[in-house]
Amino acid sequence: MSSTLPSPLRSITVLSGGVGGARFLRGLLHGIRTGVLPGVSADARVTVIANTSDDLWLHGLKICPDLDTVMYTLGDGIDPERGWGRRDETWHVNEELSAYGVENTWFGLGDRDVATHLVRTQMIEAGYPLSEVTRALSQRWLEPTYGEGLRLLPMTDDRTETHVVIADADLDRSPSGKRVIHFQEYWIKLRASVPAESLIFVGLDESTPAPGVVEAITEADLVIVPPSNPIVSVGTILGVPGIREVLRATSAAVVGLSPIIKGHHVHGMAEQMLTSAGVEVSAAGVGLLYGSRSTGGVLDAWLVDSSDADDLVRLSEAGLTVAAVPLLMSDADATAAMAAEAISAAGRAR
Amino acid sequence: MSSTLPSPLRSITVLSGGVGGARFLRGLLHGIRTGVLPGVSADARVTVIANTSDDLWLHGLKICPDLDTVMYTLGDGIDPERGWGRRDETWHVNEELSAYGVENTWFGLGDRDVATHLVRTQMIEAGYPLSEVTRALSQRWLEPTYGEGLRLLPMTDDRTETHVVIADADLDRSPSGKRVIHFQEYWIKLRASVPAESLIFVGLDESTPAPGVVEAITEADLVIVPPSNPIVSVGTILGVPGIREVLRATSAAVVGLSPIIKGHHVHGMAEQMLTSAGVEVSAAGVGLLYGSRSTGGVLDAWLVDSSDADDLVRLSEAGLTVAAVPLLMSDADATAAMAAEAISAAGRAR
Repeated sequence: MSSTLPSPLRSITVLSGGVGGARFLRGLLHGIRTGVLPGVSADARVTVIANTSDDLWLHGLKICPDLDTVMYTLGDGIDPERGWGRRDETWHVNEELSAYGVENTWFGLGDRDVATHLVRTQMIEAGYPLSEVTRALSQRWLEPTYGEGLRLLPMTDDRTETHVVIADADLDRSPSGKRVIHFQEYWIKLRASVPAESLIFVGLDESTPAPGVVEAITEADLVIVPPSNPIVSVGTILGVPGIREVLRATSAAVVGLSPIIKGHHVHGMAEQMLTSAGVEVSAAGVGLLYGSRSTGGVLDAWLVDSSDADDLVRLSEAGLTVAAVPLLMSDADATAAMAAEAISAAGRAR
Repeated sequence: MSSTLPSPLRSITVLSGGVGGARFLRGLLHGIRTGVLPGVSADARVTVIANTSDDLWLHGLKICPDLDTVMYTLGDGIDPERGWGRRDETWHVNEELSAYGVENTWFGLGDRDVATHLVRTQMIEAGYPLSEVTRALSQRWLEPTYGEGLRLLPMTDDRTETHVVIADADLDRSPSGKRVIHFQEYWIKLRASVPAESLIFVGLDESTPAPGVVEAITEADLVIVPPSNPIVSVGTILGVPGIREVLRATSAAVVGLSPIIKGHHVHGMAEQMLTSAGVEVSAAGVGLLYGSRSTGGVLDAWLVDSSDADDLVRLSEAGLTVAAVPLLMSDADATAAMAAEAISAAGRAR
C-alpha cells in the first residue's frame, strides 16, 4: 500500500491530539504558506482529525480539550506559554466554583474558555453533532485565516472518554483497592504522578468516524501522524472502528513523527502512557507500535530525532522508511522543516 | 385584619425585588444587629420572599437576577457602585460570546457571576427545585454571616417570566407591529426607552408559592413591602396565586415603603412600569395600588417620603396608617432608620 507522492500535493490529513499536534499543525500550515514544503501546492488543503477521547462534561459544560487546543493554537488565541487555553485568560469562574465548594475545580477552566464551552454545550443540547459544533466554532477561529485551506474534524461524533485505573489505598473510598478516574483528572489533577494500571476507552468500541473522517483519509494525498501521544491521542483515533482499516487501505502515504526523543516525551505524558501500555518508551517503540503498513500497521514512513539515529536499523527492518532529523518544534520554521522532512520521507516510501 | 405588634418582634418577612429590596434588607439587618429597631428582638429572623419573574435562561444558564442581587448584597459580594453583579468582576465570558456572534450579549453576565449560574443550572437540571438551589447557594452567601437569622426564598419554584409588549416598526420582523421581549431585554438592552404597551406574566397564573412562602407570611410578626418595583417585583410576588390571600389573612401587620419619591423612582424603572399599568406615578398612586387591608388591599401601613407629605390625606382616607419620613436609602444607618419608621407605623396600624 506504499506510494510515491502525487505532485503537487493538494490534500494533507493529520491525526492530531492536543498541544503536540497543534504545534505541528501550526508549523505545517506555516510551511505551506511560505512554500518550503517539497512538492506541496500553495493552496493545499489540510484536514485535521482530532482526538475527542479526552473530552469531558464538567460543571454542565461539554469540554473538548484537543479540539480547543487545535482551534486556539491555529486561530492565534492560544496562551503561548502554557500551550493550552486562551491568551490573556482570567480564572474567576473557576475561583468562584471553588468558593461554592464545587468539586473538580482542578481543571484549567479559564473565563474566556468558558464561552467556547457554553456555545458548544448549547449546540450539543440542541441536538447538533460535535462535528457541526466544531464547524461552527471554526468559523471564528480558523476560517478568517485559512478559509477552505483548513478543516477541523472530531474523530467521532459519539461520546468516548478515556478513563484511567489507578491504585487507591483508601479502602473506604475504593474497596477494590483501585479507582477509575477520567483521563483529565489523571493528567491535570494527579499530574500522572501515580502509575496508570490500565486505560479504559469508554464508548470507543461502539463509536463511528465523524462525517468526513473516512473520506479525509481515503482521498488525501498524504496522511501525517504528528508527534502526539501514541496511546491516548493517536491511539484513540486509531481505535474508532473503521479508521485503522481506512488508514491501511488509503492510496495516500502515511508518515509519522516520533513524540519520544531520547526516551522522553517533549510535551505531555507519552512516557507514562507507553509504560502503562507495556510499550518500549523510545522512538523505535512508538514506530513499532504503529507498525509498517507492509506488515499490518498504519505507517509507511517514520521520523525519529537525530539523537535517536541508533533506532533506525530496527525500524527499517520492520518495513518502515525512516529518517533521523531534528524533531524539536522550537518555532514555526523548525516545525515546517520537520514537515518538509516528513514529506520527503513519505516520497521515499515504497 | 390590622393589629398591634407582638413584643418583641421575632419574625419579619420581606417581599423583595432586586436592588431596592436588597438595599432595604441590608438596612433592616443592620438595624437588627445594632438594636435600633423598636421592639425587635436581637435574634429576630428575617425571611425574604424574592421575585423570580425576572428570571431567564440565557446561553444555557438559569439566571435569577433578584435572588442573586439579594444574595450578593447581603453576603457582601455585590458591586457597590452598580448595585448588581459581583465586586471585582470581569467580563471575559461575555466578550467571547460576542466574538462568537452569539446574540443576547446585552445581559450583564460577569465571569464571577457565571459560576453562580453554572451551579444553579446544574442543580436545576438535576431536578432540584429553585428553592433548594437557593438554599444551597445561600450556604455560601448568607449562612456564614446570618446563620438562622436570614432565609431567602424564591416566590415560587415554577418558571414564571415577565415579558413586555413593545411597538416594532420593522414589519418584516414583526408583521403585527408589536414584539414581545423578555423583561430583562426591555430593561437592560432597551433601557426601558420605549413604552411598554403591556406586560405578560408568563406562567404566573399557574404558579404556586414555593415551600415556606405561605408559612413565612402566616407566621410572621410583621410583613414589610420594601421600596421595590410595585409592578414587576412586588406585583409578581402578589400575582402568585394564594400569596395575596395569605397576606390579607395573616395576623401580622403589613407595612410598605414607597419606591416613588416626588413622582420618580430612586432605582430601577418603577415609573415606566406604573405608567404602562395605568397607575399614577406617585407615592400615593403606589400606596393606593397596594390598598388597605381594610378595603381589600394588602397593606396596613404605608410610608411616603417626607417630600410627599401632601399625599398623606388621600392615603389615610383610603384606610392606611401613614407617615412621611425620609426614604432615601443613602447608607445602612439611614435605611435602618426607615425600617424603624416602618415598624413604628405598623405598630400604630389599627
